[in-house]
Amino acid sequence: MLHLCEKPHFRYSCLMFLIWVFQLVGLNSGFGLNSGLNQSLTYIWPLPCEHTSGNETLTVNPALSLSIIGHGGSFRILREGFRRYKRIIFKFSSGISLKLGVDESYTLFIDKTEGKSVVWETIIEASTIYGALRGLETFSQLCAFDYTTKSVQISRAPWYIKDKPRFAYRGLLLDTSRHHFPVDAIKSIIESMSYAKLNVLHWHIIDTDAFPLEVPAYPKLWNGAYSKWERYTVEDASRIVSFSYYLAWCTAGIHVMAEVDVPGHAESWGTGYPDLWPNATCREPLDVTKNFTFDLISGILSEPPTFVIFYLSLSFTEIREIFPFELFHLGGDEVNTDLWDSFVLTDCWNKTRHVKQWLDDNKMKPKDAYRYFVLKAQEIAISKNWTPVNWEETFNAFAKSLNPRTVVHNWLGPGVCPKAVAKGFKCIFSNQNVWYLDHLDVSWDEVYYAEPLEGIGNKSKQELVIGGEVCMWGETVDTSNVQQTIWPRAAAAAERLWSTEEALSADNITVLQRLQYFRCLLNRRGVQAAPVTNYYARNPPSGSGSCYWQ
Amino acid sequence: MLHLCEKPHFRYSCLMFLIWVFQLVGLNSGFGLNSGLNQSLTYIWPLPCEHTSGNETLTVNPALSLSIIGHGGSFRILREGFRRYKRIIFKFSSGISLKLGVDESYTLFIDKTEGKSVVWETIIEASTIYGALRGLETFSQLCAFDYTTKSVQISRAPWYIKDKPRFAYRGLLLDTSRHHFPVDAIKSIIESMSYAKLNVLHWHIIDTDAFPLEVPAYPKLWNGAYSKWERYTVEDASRIVSFSYYLAWCTAGIHVMAEVDVPGHAESWGTGYPDLWPNATCREPLDVTKNFTFDLISGILSEPPTFVIFYLSLSFTEIREIFPFELFHLGGDEVNTDLWDSFVLTDCWNKTRHVKQWLDDNKMKPKDAYRYFVLKAQEIAISKNWTPVNWEETFNAFAKSLNPRTVVHNWLGPGVCPKAVAKGFKCIFSNQNVWYLDHLDVSWDEVYYAEPLEGIGNKSKQELVIGGEVCMWGETVDTSNVQQTIWPRAAAAAERLWSTEEALSADNITVLQRLQYFRCLLNRRGVQAAPVTNYYARNPPSGSGSCYWQ
Repeated sequence: MLHLCEKPHFRYSCLMFLIWVFQLVGLNSGFGLNSGLNQSLTYIWPLPCEHTSGNETLTVNPALSLSIIGHGGSFRILREGFRRYKRIIFKFSSGISLKLGVDESYTLFIDKTEGKSVVWETIIEASTIYGALRGLETFSQLCAFDYTTKSVQISRAPWYIKDKPRFAYRGLLLDTSRHHFPVDAIKSIIESMSYAKLNVLHWHIIDTDAFPLEVPAYPKLWNGAYSKWERYTVEDASRIVSFSYYLAWCTAGIHVMAEVDVPGHAESWGTGYPDLWPNATCREPLDVTKNFTFDLISGILSEPPTFVIFYLSLSFTEIREIFPFELFHLGGDEVNTDLWDSFVLTDCWNKTRHVKQWLDDNKMKPKDAYRYFVLKAQEIAISKNWTPVNWEETFNAFAKSLNPRTVVHNWLGPGVCPKAVAKGFKCIFSNQNVWYLDHLDVSWDEVYYAEPLEGIGNKSKQELVIGGEVCMWGETVDTSNVQQTIWPRAAAAAERLWSTEEALSADNITVLQRLQYFRCLLNRRGVQAAPVTNYYARNPPSGSGSCYWQ
Repeated sequence: MLHLCEKPHFRYSCLMFLIWVFQLVGLNSGFGLNSGLNQSLTYIWPLPCEHTSGNETLTVNPALSLSIIGHGGSFRILREGFRRYKRIIFKFSSGISLKLGVDESYTLFIDKTEGKSVVWETIIEASTIYGALRGLETFSQLCAFDYTTKSVQISRAPWYIKDKPRFAYRGLLLDTSRHHFPVDAIKSIIESMSYAKLNVLHWHIIDTDAFPLEVPAYPKLWNGAYSKWERYTVEDASRIVSFSYYLAWCTAGIHVMAEVDVPGHAESWGTGYPDLWPNATCREPLDVTKNFTFDLISGILSEPPTFVIFYLSLSFTEIREIFPFELFHLGGDEVNTDLWDSFVLTDCWNKTRHVKQWLDDNKMKPKDAYRYFVLKAQEIAISKNWTPVNWEETFNAFAKSLNPRTVVHNWLGPGVCPKAVAKGFKCIFSNQNVWYLDHLDVSWDEVYYAEPLEGIGNKSKQELVIGGEVCMWGETVDTSNVQQTIWPRAAAAAERLWSTEEALSADNITVLQRLQYFRCLLNRRGVQAAPVTNYYARNPPSGSGSCYWQ
């Protein structure tokens, strides 16, 4: 379907079936305490494409085991995922691995064994381990600890669920420049994403405020960090990506898309290397005239071969290996040229003598130099076998010059993806009016009812919208409050990106109740998701009460 | 010193010395990046009673090992604690076990080995494993990952630290009635307490709003829970206490003091047993006339022998075993009688015909019945070998009738502990003007400079103040925001309760900077502590910037 799918990291030589079998015991339902919740709803978030269910309540055997039938993939990952989900299911406590566009579909049956009336089985069928792991997430959401019988139960059995994602790209942006997040905090965010079947962490590593990333070839770059502790080593970066992909029990099946935003939003680069600033008082966009500027970008995107052994015995030779995901974000937003009169930033390039001279010598206006800079950065990324992603300003300013592989990342408002796909570009939907999580006055339902395909009627053009992303810009979030600013609103977008319109169309009435349930599920798993109906996101609960109604 | 110390759970047949030795390598200091932090400060929270330090920077060997010399205690706990601290130190990531009044003192040396100039040793000396574990917390705070050398370092070596707590009781109240907290969330709070050397979790389990606790003898009591999921089984309660005391890696050395607040704050009891209400429309204080009321309190405090086997194979026979801590809190606050004219609550007892009749028959006014109720509950607790704790209203209303073992828990304002200790009662300081964490407008320094011994000059009377407690009432906190409402202000109280006035008197200038550092340490360890200087506690950071300055 997608161009991006053509080079899978994990290739399966043939169709693989995963079958997971264990015994369930049927029992008469009887909740004892009336929970007040509508038991006829399907509390799975995001909602599967198709499902049917019944009226039986089953007890899940703690001796739950995994059988795999089929061949062709890394079963170790699935086994780890199974172990992890078993932990989630049985101690009411807490991921997965993949390639954009990989088949994440699965079928889940919880049914009576043929010919037997009491013994029950669960079967997950999928073509890839990733699909099977998404199925485990779904299964774990069906399991709930019953306080009366003190057993883990599944109600409304038998179940039949057939599911797959609506979009291949389901992203969350994290900004580690406005505030630094410890590696463990980032891992917690990655883990929480897997619960909502989000699959891309867009890591906005660097910005004007701080340059936290180690670049061994240019060791002064991270002098732009806030402090000597608020930094990421290359080993940290590798650890974050490994965590997302396939490490041990935390295999969450999540891509990490790195962003190195140029030429604007880059003042912090010059703390270590002031030559990158046009001049000492006017510090961005980065100096377009110097080879050093591009040598340095090239240096970041292609570390010279180094062999690093850390205590955890990680080693790698190229930054390309640290970020194996095929997309790399090059920013390109809010660049201070004469393109946008509304920007009050100084027009740094025009006002710096040697840059103005260079512009004149090359017969360029600042907007031409902006295009020159962006395209040169794209070339570097493409030479490293990355597909470049740029914020929509680059498309808005010079669509015809952009490399046709460019993925256009919408943010300024509605209507951009229709224009981008009309010109044959792929597009990611992040309309700031609805999907910027730092806009605290956007309510859960405004997030929920945003539609990435709005204004795109043509089916083949629709397929160019690879998905969407909610953006957690960091000005007013740090480790203390990032999870409750992301959640539960990111879950509203996650269902829009995963579940088909057909599956959701019947559910407009109960969506709030299901989202409140999912928020409590996040709380139970250690994620600090805020109450759903707060007027401002992340506000405290307004008074005493049940999690399920706040 | 304290009566409470007379019956230790963990008895040592003789003085035990714990000596922990490993090699450190001295190196020339050289931070590379100027951190902006004042390196001459001592970043240990709470501040030790005495210390000296030097100018050397040492690298901590990842092969860190533990040697124990001495005998008499459960070394397994210390070994687990050591493992845990090793994890904290070496992956920039994250407790301990005891008896109120146990010796928590320790001495920490980080010094050159005698006769050798390059090899360094760390020695922790303590009389109990609890002291040694407090020393490990201190040691872990001295270790910091250096991003330039990529090693864990200790600066300002050699170190000499001699330390012990100022107060035996250093508490935090958690309210699980206004909002339910999942067991894992409670465990996280317990773990975070150990970082600040707090040692008592006051678990306010039940209140008017909800009755979440399972009481097997009276199985309808937890029908007063918000929902069928927002409950605690007896196994959950046992798991929470075990976690605090001595389980595996999470041995945090923290007592759990349970509270069953009677006769007010108890409306939720009647959801399952409406007979406990004076009448259907006037539901508290609990009906003082019925034997059933006291049978039920007795039932909660002394479960009939049961044998419970859960998946984790926990078993116990009495609630007294679940809460082994010698203190048990019986509430007694804000009771709706004619004692307090300012209360707008209906005077339920006077207005319910059968209760009024009983009062008349027994020649009691409501305030007499209040005393009768409180003393009867105290008798039940004492018969189970608990020392009763009551909120100050019981002392204010009938000090002369109170059992002399009663610990008076101050909250209404200043000046109560002086009165209580003058009459020979022990006292816990929780003046709501400064130590109620739900008062969001109380700033970190108002918390910090509160003095539990204010107004008590006599040394022997001072010793009756067993300590203090910050209270996290739950109306506007739930799993989403409890940690950043507790922290960092609880740390301000924790230092007041741990560090001597002498140690702190020299430090009034740098306390904010040290507290900001400790807040970032909490963030690094996964605790969502809020910025320190927020006008309202738990507010988000006001803009981009370093953790160390917010």
